[in-house]
Amino acid sequence: MSHHNKEKIPYGMVGGGQDAFIGYVHRIAARLDGNFELVAGALSSRPEIAKSSGLDLGLAPERTYTDFEEMARTEAARPDGIKAVVIVTPNHLHFAPAKAFLEAGIHVICDKPLTAQLDEAVELSKVTPKNGAKFLLTHNYTAYPLMRKARQMVADGELGKIRVVQVEYPQEWLTKDVENKQANWRTDPAKSGIGGCIGDIGTHAYNILRFVTGLTTQSLSADLTSFVSGRQLDDNVHIMLRFEGGARGMLWASQVAPGCENGLQLRVFGENGGLEWRQDNPNQMWYSPFGQPRQLLTRGSEAAAGEGVSVRIPAGHPEGYLEAFATLYDEFAGVIRGQSDGVLLPTLADGVEGMRFIAAAVASSENNGKWTKL
Amino acid sequence: MSHHNKEKIPYGMVGGGQDAFIGYVHRIAARLDGNFELVAGALSSRPEIAKSSGLDLGLAPERTYTDFEEMARTEAARPDGIKAVVIVTPNHLHFAPAKAFLEAGIHVICDKPLTAQLDEAVELSKVTPKNGAKFLLTHNYTAYPLMRKARQMVADGELGKIRVVQVEYPQEWLTKDVENKQANWRTDPAKSGIGGCIGDIGTHAYNILRFVTGLTTQSLSADLTSFVSGRQLDDNVHIMLRFEGGARGMLWASQVAPGCENGLQLRVFGENGGLEWRQDNPNQMWYSPFGQPRQLLTRGSEAAAGEGVSVRIPAGHPEGYLEAFATLYDEFAGVIRGQSDGVLLPTLADGVEGMRFIAAAVASSENNGKWTKL
Amino acid sequence: MSHHNKEKIPYGMVGGGQDAFIGYVHRIAARLDGNFELVAGALSSRPEIAKSSGLDLGLAPERTYTDFEEMARTEAARPDGIKAVVIVTPNHLHFAPAKAFLEAGIHVICDKPLTAQLDEAVELSKVTPKNGAKFLLTHNYTAYPLMRKARQMVADGELGKIRVVQVEYPQEWLTKDVENKQANWRTDPAKSGIGGCIGDIGTHAYNILRFVTGLTTQSLSADLTSFVSGRQLDDNVHIMLRFEGGARGMLWASQVAPGCENGLQLRVFGENGGLEWRQDNPNQMWYSPFGQPRQLLTRGSEAAAGEGVSVRIPAGHPEGYLEAFATLYDEFAGVIRGQSDGVLLPTLADGVEGMRFIAAAVASSENNGKWTKL
Amino acid sequence: MSHHNKEKIPYGMVGGGQDAFIGYVHRIAARLDGNFELVAGALSSRPEIAKSSGLDLGLAPERTYTDFEEMARTEAARPDGIKAVVIVTPNHLHFAPAKAFLEAGIHVICDKPLTAQLDEAVELSKVTPKNGAKFLLTHNYTAYPLMRKARQMVADGELGKIRVVQVEYPQEWLTKDVENKQANWRTDPAKSGIGGCIGDIGTHAYNILRFVTGLTTQSLSADLTSFVSGRQLDDNVHIMLRFEGGARGMLWASQVAPGCENGLQLRVFGENGGLEWRQDNPNQMWYSPFGQPRQLLTRGSEAAAGEGVSVRIPAGHPEGYLEAFATLYDEFAGVIRGQSDGVLLPTLADGVEGMRFIAAAVASSENNGKWTKL
Repeated sequence: MSHHNKEKIPYGMVGGGQDAFIGYVHRIAARLDGNFELVAGALSSRPEIAKSSGLDLGLAPERTYTDFEEMARTEAARPDGIKAVVIVTPNHLHFAPAKAFLEAGIHVICDKPLTAQLDEAVELSKVTPKNGAKFLLTHNYTAYPLMRKARQMVADGELGKIRVVQVEYPQEWLTKDVENKQANWRTDPAKSGIGGCIGDIGTHAYNILRFVTGLTTQSLSADLTSFVSGRQLDDNVHIMLRFEGGARGMLWASQVAPGCENGLQLRVFGENGGLEWRQDNPNQMWYSPFGQPRQLLTRGSEAAAGEGVSVRIPAGHPEGYLEAFATLYDEFAGVIRGQSDGVLLPTLADGVEGMRFIAAAVASSENNGKWTKL
Repeated sequence: MSHHNKEKIPYGMVGGGQDAFIGYVHRIAARLDGNFELVAGALSSRPEIAKSSGLDLGLAPERTYTDFEEMARTEAARPDGIKAVVIVTPNHLHFAPAKAFLEAGIHVICDKPLTAQLDEAVELSKVTPKNGAKFLLTHNYTAYPLMRKARQMVADGELGKIRVVQVEYPQEWLTKDVENKQANWRTDPAKSGIGGCIGDIGTHAYNILRFVTGLTTQSLSADLTSFVSGRQLDDNVHIMLRFEGGARGMLWASQVAPGCENGLQLRVFGENGGLEWRQDNPNQMWYSPFGQPRQLLTRGSEAAAGEGVSVRIPAGHPEGYLEAFATLYDEFAGVIRGQSDGVLLPTLADGVEGMRFIAAAVASSENNGKWTKL
Repeated sequence: MSHHNKEKIPYGMVGGGQDAFIGYVHRIAARLDGNFELVAGALSSRPEIAKSSGLDLGLAPERTYTDFEEMARTEAARPDGIKAVVIVTPNHLHFAPAKAFLEAGIHVICDKPLTAQLDEAVELSKVTPKNGAKFLLTHNYTAYPLMRKARQMVADGELGKIRVVQVEYPQEWLTKDVENKQANWRTDPAKSGIGGCIGDIGTHAYNILRFVTGLTTQSLSADLTSFVSGRQLDDNVHIMLRFEGGARGMLWASQVAPGCENGLQLRVFGENGGLEWRQDNPNQMWYSPFGQPRQLLTRGSEAAAGEGVSVRIPAGHPEGYLEAFATLYDEFAGVIRGQSDGVLLPTLADGVEGMRFIAAAVASSENNGKWTKL
Repeated sequence: MSHHNKEKIPYGMVGGGQDAFIGYVHRIAARLDGNFELVAGALSSRPEIAKSSGLDLGLAPERTYTDFEEMARTEAARPDGIKAVVIVTPNHLHFAPAKAFLEAGIHVICDKPLTAQLDEAVELSKVTPKNGAKFLLTHNYTAYPLMRKARQMVADGELGKIRVVQVEYPQEWLTKDVENKQANWRTDPAKSGIGGCIGDIGTHAYNILRFVTGLTTQSLSADLTSFVSGRQLDDNVHIMLRFEGGARGMLWASQVAPGCENGLQLRVFGENGGLEWRQDNPNQMWYSPFGQPRQLLTRGSEAAAGEGVSVRIPAGHPEGYLEAFATLYDEFAGVIRGQSDGVLLPTLADGVEGMRFIAAAVASSENNGKWTKL
């Protein structure tokens, strides 16, 4: 973790105005390690909200935009223009600004899933960024220290060849038919794309599975359901997975599971050992070397140290969601400054993989669970 | 729980000789509440083992048989003959003795799965027992007090209509290629039947799911795998389930999951609430009424009381596997004595359902996961 | 664990009639491994209850006594008389029957605390049993497999020299002023003796501390409180302990701690490692070798094997309170049969130590927490 | 939680140079919600370290001081001078800078314990701050959302009258004789004062107990020990507490408890219910209304909302130590800006109480555990 202050990287934000959730999270993450400073924004598509949100966030009036394309153009032209932009709009508004800013030579930090449609994702991956502008997809769970440790343990062969992976992400918040800003766009195909639960949290589960195991998916069989009357998109996801090399997996994501808040859980089993981790208590991970007692690895302890395992405070003092999110920003600052390759950071390619996953799952489910390639 | 001693029910045992595991468990279960007394046995197909095992267990030499058919005939003819028999042989040796004893008018207590082959199970279910002899299948997990409570809560509508059920039973003991009596027959198709992991523990998971939810299975899609080189039967089971009325389920069973000892876990989610229970700490169950804090129901507490919820000791003093097993025996004693209908006890029909489940899962897996009816 | 049936040891019971709790537990424990058979009883001081209880338990009418002295005399004279007696009366009725049966040459199994008064305990310890009759004090927690393992680990020096011991036993059941048979005698000095909470569960906590650590108590400082209005005996116990060699300890016992059912917990810290165990999930124990990850030792696993660590079923299948209780009976059967020394079994000397502990704690508390020797 | 950016409050830091731990924590906490900006420092008493640390942190050379008195004088005189100072030196260097900055009219944020000696604390509490400068003592655990909730529940009478409080703070890091900057000053009476473990973490445990329960301490009986050979200050603390109104408490703090990282735990029991909370998983708190099932309150859920319960992200996404620390800063920013009274923030008076606690505990322990008033 960087202890050193550098000149702060000026950044802007697209989306994230008043009443938005994830924009607020990104701003804390950007601030936490002192690398970034918010100076511009197209915070809402509604001009009044955009202005009042900019005022709240202390932006100069002339850098409070109502149109992201104008923002990209104008900021690129300013000598003190933003060097990075954060895109925290609903899914259907990821593609256009991401493309615009990359082509304007401004680094892009974009929330997941990458886009609302697979073809947009593919097109975005073919964009040639001006001046080598970089792209970060905020699959934040990959920055939890123990997920980094897990990845290294698998890569180092500590578990042996991986056989079985069980990943799940149950939530309860859409158990009933709710009406609020967060719920509305996530259940609206025009804004979310073809996936509901699978796009919002299924992609997180799938991404963390691949991040840790490094497995290549061969095909999947999906059963997507929409339980709440009138809901247009899936709110429960059951998937079986087959990986190259013979490993098997199961993925469960749900928004209708009472008692589950954000129950992301990953379990990996290999020929020689197993791992188990839960997001709601992320400072602990079970490591089970076969034939020996289970060990509880704790974030910050010597036994949990490893490549990219960034911690800010000692073991026993809990770190959480915001710290992991901030680690993505801290490391991307290193990339922007040319000091790091950011090899562990989620990329455009990961975003395309996530979109292929959504597309394959929806297709499989529509084909009665037919095994479908990504 | 019965506090009253009655005249003990004399019983015999088929299988369960030296080095057997489950026979020993059945004998404790039979003893624990003081209802049964072991007086006869065909404890092994090998005469020497049968004899020395009988000696160890204090059986009279003339009631130590080497042939179960002779035992059925002889005991049925004795004025002091056994009233019940316990069958704890490998799967392929369930059908013949079960049929023989039922037809001899002797109550049968049989380990699961019911038989090695589905057709045997169906045939057994059509046998006309002499003198109304009863049958108990020892799906022991159904007798855990909190599983009884869960069943009642679902039946009473406390969770609302059930939407999603997640059940799993991971073990680690066959992670490597092991050679011992317990492992050998369970991985041998000639003794186990067509299912390995799915028959040994998958049926337990499926049975407890149905016991608690009362859901009727419409069809399933299975992906069975054998990971250990040379193993003839499945050691990992991935299944998606569809139930009548629209509920969905996932079932995972594994014998190659390092870190998992006997990790049976059931989670049920309805329109109004959820439940979560694990066998390895069976004295607690999470109840999550939607929109309220999760509650931890504890065995023996007032909040966990209900129909068939038998406890022997107060909350906070743990009961375990043997006590649940013993409850089956205690309640079956009531059935034998004509004092109870035993409505919560697993039946021949449950055994046939389990065999249909195995058959459907194996067929589905062989058909590349095709949705298959039971 | 003994798998072999021997001729059953005939035993009798003093106390344990209808509505008693612990007598029922003892009978299950006696039955579980098949070593004992109940044939006589002085089950209640009230003749009618004694008779109907004897009937319930299937005792012959002539062996259903209303007077324990007559029972001792008569049974000692019968050729088929009881070989052991179980004393499960309130504390003030331990001394006289224990003495009577020992002097009649009948082995005694007695609930804790040993007596109601220290001088009775001392006197009992000086009795010369006829025919070498043996004595077992049912400090049942010492027979939990992982407490046996813990004792061995400490004895083997795996933790290094012990420095700090934290033991606690909180309950909630006397939070309010309750009226029932169990509560009444436990809060009545005439029946319980000078200690309330400290005698009922404080002695268990103290006993398990000493069983596992082997530490010799030098002195203690106590603060005993009675929180519920009108209660004559303590319902909350705070004690600081000093041991020979310099170790320090804390003991908390309470009957007024809402949320705590039977929360016995032991934590031991030495120069090289620590242990942590809770009774409400007794199949797991934390072992923390200093500088390495914490390990979860599970009952039945290879890593948890050790001297006197008796298990009946595999790891992951939970055993509980009754199994530990039964282990005391199983091992005492070995002592009675002359096959074992029962070196791990709680003795008369442990009972005297427990009474000294109560006396010292009450005296210290009355002297404003003065450090008091045992 | 404030979502609005205001003009940042310029602040300076005394201590917290290279290799310091807690200064780094304070800087993150100051940054997290965007209220503060570091612009000056006397980061080390060693000039070279002070300079290079200032450079690292991006301070202007002329605002990188080697003497805190010069810093107070100079900054107070600058039109753009700091408005607040953070004191993160070892204990013996708290008093002088705190006094100097308060008297210079600069708000003070000071780490705990307040000072090294009680008389310094008392003197500091009598200082008249210039221009009404405010003081914040960073007892950070009080800002965990669920500790705020617990305080409110007790104050609202949800537990009934409090009877028993059990608080503990075990660590393992000084199990062996270690040599490093963090360990050295904490075990050196010249820098720490008369308390070792009791000052470093015992005060945290005592503070959180009082914060939540509001109980007034009547007297305490302490047994302080130093287990590691050559260590001059206590490394294990056993204390019994008596509160006005009759409640009783126990406090355990230790630096020699292998397996315990930062195991702060608080349990509160009243006439009608109990609470239980652990710092290492701070997003959950047990609430046990007597006679009903235990409830798990989760940070961010509706059931855990209350006065001063600030959360940044939804339930199920964990917050940790840094977020709680940042909440102190966020709320103190409100106080500095005159927008808030900061009624929940730890004060100078809390600091004096903590020093009285240390003094009483050390005196009691030296008097063989004599009950000692604060």
